[in-house]
Amino acid sequence: MKSPYDDSSFFSAYSSMTRSRLGLDGAGEWETVRSLMPDAAGMSILDLGCGFGWHAAWFCRQGAARIRAVDSSVSMLEKARLFNNDERISYEEGDIESLDFGIMQYDLVFSSLVFHYVRDYSTLIRKIQSCLKPGGCLLFSLEHPAFTAEGSEDWCYDENGCIKHFPLDNYFREGERMTGFLGFPVRKYHRTLTTYLSVLLDSGFAVTAVREPEVPEHLKGLEEMKNEWRRPMMLVIRAEKIHTA
Amino acid sequence: MKSPYDDSSFFSAYSSMTRSRLGLDGAGEWETVRSLMPDAAGMSILDLGCGFGWHAAWFCRQGAARIRAVDSSVSMLEKARLFNNDERISYEEGDIESLDFGIMQYDLVFSSLVFHYVRDYSTLIRKIQSCLKPGGCLLFSLEHPAFTAEGSEDWCYDENGCIKHFPLDNYFREGERMTGFLGFPVRKYHRTLTTYLSVLLDSGFAVTAVREPEVPEHLKGLEEMKNEWRRPMMLVIRAEKIHTA
Repeated sequence: MKSPYDDSSFFSAYSSMTRSRLGLDGAGEWETVRSLMPDAAGMSILDLGCGFGWHAAWFCRQGAARIRAVDSSVSMLEKARLFNNDERISYEEGDIESLDFGIMQYDLVFSSLVFHYVRDYSTLIRKIQSCLKPGGCLLFSLEHPAFTAEGSEDWCYDENGCIKHFPLDNYFREGERMTGFLGFPVRKYHRTLTTYLSVLLDSGFAVTAVREPEVPEHLKGLEEMKNEWRRPMMLVIRAEKIHTA
Repeated sequence: MKSPYDDSSFFSAYSSMTRSRLGLDGAGEWETVRSLMPDAAGMSILDLGCGFGWHAAWFCRQGAARIRAVDSSVSMLEKARLFNNDERISYEEGDIESLDFGIMQYDLVFSSLVFHYVRDYSTLIRKIQSCLKPGGCLLFSLEHPAFTAEGSEDWCYDENGCIKHFPLDNYFREGERMTGFLGFPVRKYHRTLTTYLSVLLDSGFAVTAVREPEVPEHLKGLEEMKNEWRRPMMLVIRAEKIHTA
Protein backbone atom coordinates (compact mmCIF):
# COMPACT_ATOMS: atom_id res chain seq x y z
CA MET A 1 0.00 0.00 0.00
CA LYS A 2 1.35 3.40 -0.98
CA SER A 3 2.14 5.71 1.94
CA PRO A 4 0.17 9.00 1.96
CA TYR A 5 3.55 10.61 2.52
CA ASP A 6 4.45 9.58 -1.03
CA ASP A 7 1.75 11.86 -2.46
CA SER A 8 3.82 14.81 -3.65
CA SER A 9 1.39 17.58 -2.53
CA PHE A 10 0.94 16.02 0.90
CA PHE A 11 4.67 15.51 1.24
CA SER A 12 5.33 19.10 0.35
CA ALA A 13 2.80 20.31 2.97
CA TYR A 14 4.33 18.01 5.59
CA SER A 15 7.83 19.18 4.72
CA SER A 16 6.87 22.78 5.48
CA MET A 17 5.64 22.04 9.02
CA THR A 18 7.69 23.48 11.88
CA ARG A 19 8.65 20.00 13.03
CA SER A 20 9.86 19.07 9.55
CA ARG A 21 11.85 22.26 9.03
CA LEU A 22 13.40 22.49 12.49
CA GLY A 23 13.77 18.79 13.25
CA LEU A 24 13.50 17.71 16.87
CA ASP A 25 13.57 21.26 18.26
CA GLY A 26 10.46 22.06 16.23
CA ALA A 27 8.49 19.15 17.71
CA GLY A 28 6.38 20.14 20.72
CA GLU A 29 6.77 16.75 22.37
CA TRP A 30 10.53 16.41 21.99
CA GLU A 31 11.50 17.74 25.45
CA THR A 32 9.20 15.17 27.05
CA VAL A 33 10.40 12.34 24.81
CA ARG A 34 14.06 13.20 25.39
CA SER A 35 13.58 13.27 29.16
CA LEU A 36 12.40 9.64 28.97
CA MET A 37 15.16 8.36 26.68
CA PRO A 38 17.43 5.66 28.07
CA ASP A 39 21.18 6.18 27.66
CA ALA A 40 21.54 5.16 24.00
CA ALA A 41 25.32 4.65 24.12
CA GLY A 42 26.19 1.28 22.58
CA MET A 43 22.56 0.42 22.00
CA SER A 44 21.05 -1.52 19.16
CA ILE A 45 17.86 0.37 18.22
CA LEU A 46 14.79 -0.21 16.07
CA ASP A 47 13.10 3.04 14.94
CA LEU A 48 9.55 2.38 13.70
CA GLY A 49 8.37 5.12 11.34
CA CYS A 50 11.64 7.03 11.21
CA GLY A 51 10.43 9.84 8.92
CA PHE A 52 13.26 12.23 8.06
CA GLY A 53 15.60 10.39 10.44
CA TRP A 54 15.89 13.13 13.08
CA HIS A 55 15.68 10.64 15.93
CA ALA A 56 18.05 8.16 14.26
CA ALA A 57 20.62 10.93 13.91
CA TRP A 58 20.12 11.93 17.55
CA PHE A 59 20.72 8.30 18.61
CA CYS A 60 23.98 8.39 16.65
CA ARG A 61 25.09 11.54 18.47
CA GLN A 62 24.36 9.73 21.77
CA GLY A 63 26.71 6.92 20.75
CA ALA A 64 24.24 4.25 19.63
CA ALA A 65 25.87 1.20 18.02
CA ARG A 66 23.35 0.67 15.24
CA ILE A 67 19.88 1.85 14.26
CA ARG A 68 17.46 0.03 11.99
CA ALA A 69 15.20 2.84 10.81
CA VAL A 70 12.01 1.77 9.05
CA ASP A 71 9.47 3.86 7.17
CA SER A 72 6.76 3.02 4.63
CA SER A 73 7.36 6.21 2.63
CA VAL A 74 10.00 6.24 -0.08
CA SER A 75 9.99 10.06 -0.12
CA MET A 76 10.65 10.19 3.61
CA LEU A 77 13.52 7.74 3.37
CA GLU A 78 15.04 9.67 0.46
CA LYS A 79 15.17 12.84 2.59
CA ALA A 80 16.36 10.88 5.62
CA ARG A 81 19.32 9.48 3.67
CA LEU A 82 20.11 13.03 2.54
CA PHE A 83 19.66 14.90 5.86
CA ASN A 84 20.63 12.27 8.40
CA ASN A 85 23.11 9.91 6.91
CA ASP A 86 25.35 7.81 9.12
CA GLU A 87 26.95 4.42 8.58
CA ARG A 88 25.33 3.15 11.80
CA ILE A 89 21.84 3.86 10.44
CA SER A 90 20.23 1.35 8.06
CA TYR A 91 17.23 3.00 6.45
CA GLU A 92 14.67 0.49 5.23
CA GLU A 93 11.37 0.72 3.40
CA GLY A 94 8.73 -1.38 5.11
CA ASP A 95 5.29 -1.60 6.68
CA ILE A 96 5.72 -2.07 10.42
CA GLU A 97 2.54 -4.19 10.57
CA SER A 98 3.95 -6.87 8.26
CA LEU A 99 7.69 -6.49 8.88
CA ASP A 100 9.63 -9.16 10.79
CA PHE A 101 11.47 -7.53 13.70
CA GLY A 102 13.49 -10.62 14.70
CA ILE A 103 13.99 -12.08 18.18
CA MET A 104 15.88 -10.43 21.08
CA GLN A 105 17.75 -8.08 18.76
CA TYR A 106 17.27 -4.65 20.29
CA ASP A 107 17.93 -2.67 23.47
CA LEU A 108 15.43 -0.01 22.46
CA VAL A 109 12.40 0.14 20.19
CA PHE A 110 11.47 3.73 19.48
CA SER A 111 8.51 5.15 17.58
CA SER A 112 7.39 8.73 17.08
CA LEU A 113 3.72 9.46 16.26
CA VAL A 114 3.09 6.26 14.30
CA PHE A 115 1.08 3.85 16.49
CA HIS A 116 -2.22 5.66 15.81
CA TYR A 117 -1.78 4.64 12.15
CA VAL A 118 -1.48 0.97 13.13
CA ARG A 119 -4.55 -1.23 12.70
CA ASP A 120 -3.48 -4.12 14.93
CA TYR A 121 -1.83 -2.70 18.04
CA SER A 122 -1.78 -5.97 20.05
CA THR A 123 0.14 -7.85 17.38
CA LEU A 124 2.60 -4.97 17.04
CA ILE A 125 3.25 -4.95 20.80
CA ARG A 126 3.80 -8.72 20.84
CA LYS A 127 6.32 -8.38 17.99
CA ILE A 128 8.10 -5.59 19.86
CA GLN A 129 8.20 -7.62 23.06
CA SER A 130 9.81 -10.52 21.17
CA CYS A 131 12.42 -8.40 19.39
CA LEU A 132 13.61 -6.67 22.57
CA LYS A 133 16.37 -8.09 24.73
CA PRO A 134 15.33 -8.78 28.36
CA GLY A 135 15.22 -5.46 30.19
CA GLY A 136 14.97 -3.66 26.85
CA CYS A 137 12.93 -0.49 26.50
CA LEU A 138 9.99 0.57 24.34
CA LEU A 139 9.46 4.33 24.05
CA PHE A 140 6.74 5.74 21.81
CA SER A 141 4.64 8.83 21.26
CA LEU A 142 1.20 8.83 19.71
CA GLU A 143 -1.89 10.96 19.38
CA HIS A 144 -3.83 11.08 22.65
CA PRO A 145 -7.02 8.99 22.86
CA ALA A 146 -8.99 12.08 23.94
CA PHE A 147 -7.72 13.75 20.75
CA THR A 148 -8.51 10.92 18.32
CA ALA A 149 -11.87 9.82 19.79
CA GLU A 150 -14.39 12.17 18.19
CA GLY A 151 -12.90 11.92 14.72
CA SER A 152 -12.54 15.42 13.30
CA GLU A 153 -9.46 16.35 15.38
CA ASP A 154 -10.71 19.93 15.14
CA TRP A 155 -11.88 22.46 17.75
CA CYS A 156 -15.46 23.68 18.15
CA TYR A 157 -15.76 27.35 17.21
CA ASP A 158 -18.32 30.02 18.05
CA GLU A 159 -20.01 32.27 15.47
CA ASN A 160 -16.98 34.61 15.51
CA GLY A 161 -14.57 31.82 14.70
CA CYS A 162 -13.17 31.71 18.23
CA ILE A 163 -12.40 28.36 19.83
CA LYS A 164 -15.02 27.27 22.36
CA HIS A 165 -13.53 23.90 23.34
CA PHE A 166 -12.39 20.61 21.84
CA PRO A 167 -15.07 17.96 21.20
CA LEU A 168 -14.87 14.61 22.98
CA ASP A 169 -17.14 11.86 21.63
CA ASN A 170 -17.22 8.18 20.53
CA TYR A 171 -14.54 7.41 23.10
CA PHE A 172 -15.30 3.72 23.60
CA ARG A 173 -15.88 3.06 19.89
CA GLU A 174 -12.41 1.95 18.90
CA GLY A 175 -11.39 1.68 15.28
CA GLU A 176 -10.86 3.62 12.10
CA ARG A 177 -11.08 7.41 11.93
CA MET A 178 -10.80 9.31 8.63
CA THR A 179 -9.40 12.70 9.58
CA GLY A 180 -7.90 15.61 7.76
CA PHE A 181 -4.20 16.38 8.14
CA LEU A 182 -2.73 19.33 6.26
CA GLY A 183 -5.83 19.35 4.09
CA PHE A 184 -5.54 15.69 3.06
CA PRO A 185 -7.63 12.73 4.25
CA VAL A 186 -5.69 10.40 6.53
CA ARG A 187 -6.77 7.07 8.04
CA LYS A 188 -6.03 6.64 11.74
CA TYR A 189 -7.13 4.23 14.45
CA HIS A 190 -8.60 5.35 17.74
CA ARG A 191 -8.00 3.23 20.82
CA THR A 192 -8.71 3.97 24.46
CA LEU A 193 -6.01 4.69 27.02
CA THR A 194 -7.13 1.43 28.65
CA THR A 195 -6.19 -0.50 25.51
CA TYR A 196 -2.85 1.24 25.03
CA LEU A 197 -1.73 0.47 28.58
CA SER A 198 -3.46 -2.87 29.22
CA VAL A 199 -1.99 -4.52 26.13
CA LEU A 200 1.47 -3.52 27.33
CA LEU A 201 0.86 -4.75 30.89
CA ASP A 202 -0.60 -8.02 29.57
CA SER A 203 2.31 -8.60 27.17
CA GLY A 204 5.22 -8.74 29.57
CA PHE A 205 5.97 -5.04 29.94
CA ALA A 206 6.23 -2.84 33.00
CA VAL A 207 4.95 0.65 32.25
CA THR A 208 7.55 3.09 33.59
CA ALA A 209 6.28 6.44 32.30
CA VAL A 210 3.09 7.95 30.87
CA ARG A 211 3.31 11.64 29.90
CA GLU A 212 1.16 14.15 28.08
CA PRO A 213 3.63 16.66 26.62
CA GLU A 214 2.99 20.35 27.18
CA VAL A 215 4.20 23.00 24.76
CA PRO A 216 7.80 23.96 25.62
CA GLU A 217 8.71 27.60 26.30
CA HIS A 218 10.53 28.18 23.00
CA LEU A 219 7.48 27.16 20.92
CA LYS A 220 4.78 28.95 22.94
CA GLY A 221 4.90 31.96 20.61
CA LEU A 222 3.78 29.91 17.59
CA GLU A 223 0.20 30.49 16.45
CA GLU A 224 -0.34 26.71 16.02
CA MET A 225 0.63 26.09 19.66
CA LYS A 226 -1.31 28.80 21.46
CA ASN A 227 -4.34 26.67 22.38
CA GLU A 228 -2.54 23.41 23.10
CA TRP A 229 -2.83 23.90 26.90
CA ARG A 230 -6.57 23.32 26.47
CA ARG A 231 -6.46 19.68 25.35
CA PRO A 232 -4.00 16.78 25.53
CA MET A 233 -2.89 16.10 21.98
CA MET A 234 -0.16 13.54 22.49
CA LEU A 235 0.79 10.77 24.83
CA VAL A 236 4.29 9.42 25.44
CA ILE A 237 4.64 5.95 26.95
CA ARG A 238 7.75 4.14 28.15
CA ALA A 239 7.72 0.45 28.99
CA GLU A 240 10.33 -2.10 29.94
CA LYS A 241 10.41 -5.77 28.95
CA ILE A 242 10.15 -7.70 32.20
CA HIS A 243 10.05 -11.28 30.98
CA THR A 244 9.80 -13.34 27.83
CA ALA A 245 6.03 -13.71 27.40
CA MET B 1 -14.65 21.45 57.44
CA LYS B 2 -18.16 20.10 57.11
CA SER B 3 -18.62 17.47 54.42
CA PRO B 4 -21.13 18.44 51.66
CA TYR B 5 -22.61 14.99 52.28
CA ASP B 6 -23.76 16.27 55.68
CA ASP B 7 -26.10 18.78 54.05
CA SER B 8 -29.45 17.04 54.43
CA SER B 9 -30.86 17.93 50.97
CA PHE B 10 -27.68 16.89 49.23
CA PHE B 11 -27.52 13.70 51.26
CA SER B 12 -31.08 12.87 50.38
CA ALA B 13 -30.38 13.39 46.64
CA TYR B 14 -27.25 11.26 46.89
CA SER B 15 -29.12 8.53 48.73
CA SER B 16 -31.60 8.20 45.88
CA MET B 17 -28.92 7.59 43.19
CA THR B 18 -28.85 4.12 41.63
CA ARG B 19 -25.42 3.46 43.16
CA SER B 20 -26.68 4.40 46.62
CA ARG B 21 -29.85 2.33 46.40
CA LEU B 22 -28.37 -0.78 44.80
CA GLY B 23 -24.92 -0.71 46.39
CA LEU B 24 -22.04 -2.09 44.35
CA ASP B 25 -24.25 -3.58 41.63
CA GLY B 26 -25.66 -0.12 40.94
CA ALA B 27 -22.19 1.38 40.37
CA GLY B 28 -21.16 1.43 36.72
CA GLU B 29 -17.48 0.96 37.53
CA TRP B 30 -17.85 -1.95 39.97
CA GLU B 31 -17.20 -4.78 37.49
CA THR B 32 -13.94 -3.14 36.49
CA VAL B 33 -12.94 -2.42 40.09
CA ARG B 34 -13.77 -5.95 41.22
CA SER B 35 -11.75 -7.49 38.39
CA LEU B 36 -8.69 -5.66 39.73
CA MET B 37 -9.16 -6.53 43.41
CA PRO B 38 -6.43 -8.58 45.06
CA ASP B 39 -7.53 -11.61 47.08
CA ALA B 40 -8.68 -9.84 50.25
CA ALA B 41 -8.64 -12.96 52.47
CA GLY B 42 -6.76 -12.20 55.68
CA MET B 43 -5.93 -8.68 54.56
CA SER B 44 -5.65 -5.57 56.66
CA ILE B 45 -7.35 -2.84 54.62
CA LEU B 46 -7.65 0.95 54.71
CA ASP B 47 -10.75 2.26 52.90
CA LEU B 48 -10.46 6.00 52.18
CA GLY B 49 -13.87 7.63 51.76
CA CYS B 50 -15.93 4.56 52.62
CA GLY B 51 -19.37 6.16 52.09
CA PHE B 52 -22.15 3.72 52.95
CA GLY B 53 -19.63 0.95 53.54
CA TRP B 54 -20.51 -1.21 50.52
CA HIS B 55 -16.90 -1.97 49.75
CA ALA B 56 -16.01 -2.58 53.41
CA ALA B 57 -18.81 -5.16 53.63
CA TRP B 58 -17.62 -6.78 50.39
CA PHE B 59 -14.10 -7.07 51.85
CA CYS B 60 -15.62 -8.82 54.87
CA ARG B 61 -17.39 -11.33 52.62
CA GLN B 62 -14.03 -12.01 50.93
CA GLY B 63 -12.52 -12.86 54.30
CA ALA B 64 -10.58 -9.69 55.11
CA ALA B 65 -9.11 -9.60 58.62
CA ARG B 66 -9.87 -5.96 59.41
CA ILE B 67 -10.96 -2.82 57.61
CA ARG B 68 -10.35 0.74 58.77
CA ALA B 69 -13.07 2.65 56.93
CA VAL B 70 -12.74 6.44 56.94
CA ASP B 71 -15.19 9.10 55.78
CA SER B 72 -15.52 12.81 56.45
CA SER B 73 -19.32 12.67 56.50
CA VAL B 74 -21.14 11.84 59.73
CA SER B 75 -24.34 11.07 57.81
CA MET B 76 -22.55 8.59 55.58
CA LEU B 77 -20.98 6.81 58.53
CA GLU B 78 -24.31 6.63 60.31
CA LYS B 79 -25.84 4.77 57.35
CA ALA B 80 -22.72 2.64 56.95
CA ARG B 81 -22.97 1.44 60.56
CA LEU B 82 -26.61 0.63 59.91
CA PHE B 83 -26.35 -1.06 56.49
CA ASN B 84 -22.90 -2.61 56.65
CA ASN B 85 -22.03 -3.45 60.19
CA ASP B 86 -19.33 -6.02 60.95
CA GLU B 87 -16.98 -6.37 63.89
CA ARG B 88 -14.02 -6.40 61.52
CA ILE B 89 -14.92 -2.92 60.20
CA SER B 90 -13.90 0.15 62.21
CA TYR B 91 -15.78 3.14 60.87
CA GLU B 92 -14.03 6.41 61.58
CA GLU B 93 -14.80 10.06 60.93
CA GLY B 94 -11.81 11.82 59.44
CA ASP B 95 -10.40 13.97 56.64
CA ILE B 96 -8.04 11.80 54.61
CA GLU B 97 -5.82 14.81 53.87
CA SER B 98 -4.99 15.37 57.55
CA LEU B 99 -5.40 11.86 58.94
CA ASP B 100 -2.39 9.81 60.06
CA PHE B 101 -2.41 6.44 58.25
CA GLY B 102 0.47 4.91 60.25
CA ILE B 103 3.49 3.03 58.90
CA MET B 104 3.43 -0.38 57.14
CA GLN B 105 0.03 -1.26 58.50
CA TYR B 106 -1.99 -2.34 55.45
CA ASP B 107 -2.01 -4.93 52.68
CA LEU B 108 -4.47 -2.87 50.65
CA VAL B 109 -5.45 0.78 50.47
CA PHE B 110 -8.72 1.17 48.62
CA SER B 111 -10.56 4.32 47.60
CA SER B 112 -13.69 4.77 45.51
CA LEU B 113 -14.31 8.11 43.74
CA VAL B 114 -12.61 10.29 46.34
CA PHE B 115 -9.20 11.36 45.02
CA HIS B 116 -10.67 14.09 42.78
CA TYR B 117 -11.81 15.81 46.01
CA VAL B 118 -8.27 15.80 47.37
CA ARG B 119 -6.30 19.04 47.12
CA ASP B 120 -2.81 17.63 47.67
CA TYR B 121 -2.53 14.36 45.75
CA SER B 122 1.27 13.98 46.09
CA THR B 123 1.18 14.12 49.87
CA LEU B 124 -1.70 11.63 49.95
CA ILE B 125 0.22 9.16 47.77
CA ARG B 126 3.33 9.47 49.95
CA LYS B 127 1.21 8.75 53.04
CA ILE B 128 -0.33 5.73 51.33
CA GLN B 129 3.06 4.43 50.25
CA SER B 130 4.28 4.66 53.86
CA CYS B 131 1.25 2.94 55.39
CA LEU B 132 1.38 -0.02 52.99
CA LYS B 133 3.38 -3.13 53.75
CA PRO B 134 6.03 -3.96 51.10
CA GLY B 135 4.25 -5.50 48.11
CA GLY B 136 0.98 -3.95 49.30
CA CYS B 137 -1.60 -2.75 46.85
CA LEU B 138 -3.29 0.59 46.18
CA LEU B 139 -6.52 0.41 44.16
CA PHE B 140 -8.57 3.53 43.50
CA SER B 141 -11.21 4.93 41.18
CA LEU B 142 -11.63 8.59 40.37
CA GLU B 143 -13.21 10.90 37.86
CA HIS B 144 -11.34 10.83 34.55
CA PRO B 145 -9.09 13.83 33.77
CA ALA B 146 -10.86 14.28 30.41
CA PHE B 147 -14.12 14.50 32.38
CA THR B 148 -12.95 16.98 35.03
CA ALA B 149 -10.84 19.26 32.80
CA GLU B 150 -13.34 21.71 31.32
CA GLY B 151 -15.18 22.27 34.58
CA SER B 152 -18.92 21.98 33.94
CA GLU B 153 -18.97 18.16 33.73
CA ASP B 154 -21.91 18.59 31.38
CA TRP B 155 -22.48 17.70 27.73
CA CYS B 156 -22.84 20.25 24.92
CA TYR B 157 -26.37 20.22 23.50
CA ASP B 158 -27.83 21.36 20.19
CA GLU B 159 -30.88 23.66 19.88
CA ASN B 160 -33.18 20.61 20.28
CA GLY B 161 -31.59 19.59 23.55
CA CYS B 162 -29.79 16.64 21.99
CA ILE B 163 -26.24 15.86 23.03
CA LYS B 164 -23.64 16.99 20.49
CA HIS B 165 -20.49 15.94 22.34
CA PHE B 166 -18.68 16.44 25.65
CA PRO B 167 -16.48 19.55 25.98
CA LEU B 168 -12.76 19.16 26.61
CA ASP B 169 -10.93 22.31 27.70
CA ASN B 170 -8.41 23.70 30.27
CA TYR B 171 -6.73 20.31 30.38
CA PHE B 172 -3.28 21.46 31.51
CA ARG B 173 -4.66 23.99 34.03
CA GLU B 174 -4.68 21.80 37.12
CA GLY B 175 -6.52 22.84 40.26
CA GLU B 176 -9.90 23.63 41.68
CA ARG B 177 -13.15 23.12 39.74
CA MET B 178 -16.51 24.16 41.14
CA THR B 179 -19.01 21.81 39.53
CA GLY B 180 -22.60 20.87 40.08
CA PHE B 181 -23.49 17.43 41.42
CA LEU B 182 -27.14 16.55 41.98
CA GLY B 183 -27.94 20.26 41.78
CA PHE B 184 -25.46 21.28 44.49
CA PRO B 185 -22.11 23.05 44.06
CA VAL B 186 -19.19 20.73 44.75
CA ARG B 187 -15.45 21.55 44.84
CA LYS B 188 -13.20 19.13 42.97
CA TYR B 189 -9.62 19.18 41.78
CA HIS B 190 -8.61 18.50 38.21
CA ARG B 191 -5.27 16.88 37.55
CA THR B 192 -3.84 15.46 34.34
CA LEU B 193 -3.38 11.75 33.71
CA THR B 194 0.35 12.53 33.66
CA THR B 195 0.16 13.75 37.26
CA TYR B 196 -1.96 10.84 38.49
CA LEU B 197 0.46 8.25 37.09
CA SER B 198 3.80 10.06 37.43
CA VAL B 199 3.34 10.76 41.15
CA LEU B 200 2.74 7.03 41.69
CA LEU B 201 5.74 5.99 39.59
CA ASP B 202 7.94 8.56 41.35
CA SER B 203 6.79 7.48 44.84
CA GLY B 204 7.84 3.84 44.86
CA PHE B 205 4.86 2.26 43.12
CA ALA B 206 4.65 0.03 40.06
CA VAL B 207 1.48 0.77 38.10
CA THR B 208 -0.14 -2.59 37.35
CA ALA B 209 -3.47 -1.57 35.84
CA VAL B 210 -5.13 1.51 34.32
CA ARG B 211 -8.73 1.06 33.21
CA GLU B 212 -11.57 3.26 32.00
CA PRO B 213 -14.75 1.44 33.06
CA GLU B 214 -17.46 0.90 30.45
CA VAL B 215 -21.12 0.59 31.36
CA PRO B 216 -21.88 -3.06 32.22
CA GLU B 217 -24.67 -4.92 30.40
CA HIS B 218 -27.13 -4.88 33.31
CA LEU B 219 -27.02 -1.05 33.58
CA LYS B 220 -27.10 -0.21 29.85
CA GLY B 221 -30.89 0.27 29.95
CA LEU B 222 -30.66 3.15 32.44
CA GLU B 223 -31.33 6.61 30.97
CA GLU B 224 -28.36 8.07 32.90
CA MET B 225 -25.98 5.51 31.30
CA LYS B 226 -27.03 5.66 27.68
CA ASN B 227 -24.41 8.16 26.50
CA GLU B 228 -21.54 6.98 28.65
CA TRP B 229 -19.88 5.18 25.69
CA ARG B 230 -19.17 8.65 24.27
CA ARG B 231 -16.74 9.88 26.95
CA PRO B 232 -14.52 8.33 29.62
CA MET B 233 -15.99 9.35 32.97
CA MET B 234 -13.91 7.35 35.38
CA LEU B 235 -10.45 5.93 35.73
CA VAL B 236 -9.40 2.96 37.88
CA ILE B 237 -5.75 2.62 38.81
CA ARG B 238 -3.97 -0.22 40.58
CA ALA B 239 -0.43 0.14 41.90
CA GLU B 240 1.91 -1.99 43.94
CA LYS B 241 4.41 -0.78 46.52
CA ILE B 242 7.80 -1.81 45.17
CA HIS B 243 10.17 -0.40 47.76
CA THR B 244 10.24 1.83 50.79
CA ALA B 245 10.81 5.22 49.20
